[in-house]
Amino acid sequence: MADKETRVGELREAVQEFVSARNWEGYHNPKNLAMSIAIEAAEIMEHFQWITIDEGRALMAEEEARVEVADELADVMIYCLSFANATEIDVSEAILKKLARNEGRFPV
Amino acid sequence: MADKETRVGELREAVQEFVSARNWEGYHNPKNLAMSIAIEAAEIMEHFQWITIDEGRALMAEEEARVEVADELADVMIYCLSFANATEIDVSEAILKKLARNEGRFPV
Amino acid sequence: MADKETRVGELREAVQEFVSARNWEGYHNPKNLAMSIAIEAAEIMEHFQWITIDEGRALMAEEEARVEVADELADVMIYCLSFANATEIDVSEAILKKLARNEGRFPV
Amino acid sequence: MADKETRVGELREAVQEFVSARNWEGYHNPKNLAMSIAIEAAEIMEHFQWITIDEGRALMAEEEARVEVADELADVMIYCLSFANATEIDVSEAILKKLARNEGRFPV
Repeated sequence: MADKETRVGELREAVQEFVSARNWEGYHNPKNLAMSIAIEAAEIMEHFQWITIDEGRALMAEEEARVEVADELADVMIYCLSFANATEIDVSEAILKKLARNEGRFPV
Repeated sequence: MADKETRVGELREAVQEFVSARNWEGYHNPKNLAMSIAIEAAEIMEHFQWITIDEGRALMAEEEARVEVADELADVMIYCLSFANATEIDVSEAILKKLARNEGRFPV
Repeated sequence: MADKETRVGELREAVQEFVSARNWEGYHNPKNLAMSIAIEAAEIMEHFQWITIDEGRALMAEEEARVEVADELADVMIYCLSFANATEIDVSEAILKKLARNEGRFPV
Repeated sequence: MADKETRVGELREAVQEFVSARNWEGYHNPKNLAMSIAIEAAEIMEHFQWITIDEGRALMAEEEARVEVADELADVMIYCLSFANATEIDVSEAILKKLARNEGRFPV
């Protein structure tokens, strides 16, 4: 699995290069990117809109649907990483801090 | 920046441990997680709802707002990583494949 | 049921008066209102985030939850009506046209 | 403008007839409809994703774009009305109550 090896910073850089090669930094501002994350999140939901929770699990065992959904999930994360680039937010730090805080809110 | 060092797999594992320590795998199914990603995406948008693009950029220069927004961004990404865990999607691979495909769709 | 008697135009006017009494027309522009509709839609979803379809139906039989959800639904529709006011879209016409078109797409 | 004459109840009935003629009541349950409202809200946002507030206003002066956006707005409202049908929420009452409450929260 590439996730085992890949550093978050490498993904951020790949997104940054894509955006700056096209001079899209102006479009990739926080307000537009917040919309973009939500728009792509809705595209993931479309796959699960009319089916039950169990059917949703079964759907993800089908290769074709899983590839399509992986593609939508990538879109959400690309915009999240572009948002992080535009705002210089450290997502690994933010995620680990949030999980630590949630440990307190939801004790095992 | 922690993103320089942190591997995506480490973040996935941190999320997985949080979820399984609480026996939440049943709740963290694809349909529910798709909703959760969209719900948290909306919480990022709330910060930019009534302001212009320029005001949105300026807001992200304010430390307090930036920390709050980083927290919402972390929520979106935590649910994305939980979705990846639940469906065994390799997000690094999906992101890099999507960027490569977009290279073709949007030539420099 | 007030819906039996109330004309869409009356609701539009009530929203318009609320907005213009506060000089909020500048904020209630199409881009901001599109975000606002999505933000309030997410607040409806929060009530159904971790429950099954059947539990969702059961929840709507509980008076307290139903009132809360009605309140979120009202927010979505208020922003839809404000969007219609800002853009002079006739929603009754748009809805009936869309249903007629869908008759063709999804024959009984 | 049809909104001047059309009662909310007439629109609800048109949606109800469409849904029941296709035996879709099972699909049109609160959890699925909450997702559907959010999905269609995102489709409105797509039209405003990469443009400024002023460009968004200008876009709504173009007939073709306005018709497309009216169509997406209709989709959001159709699902809102179907949600109201499925849960027996009186939307006119909910909207007017919410505006009255907001009068108190945001005095002129």
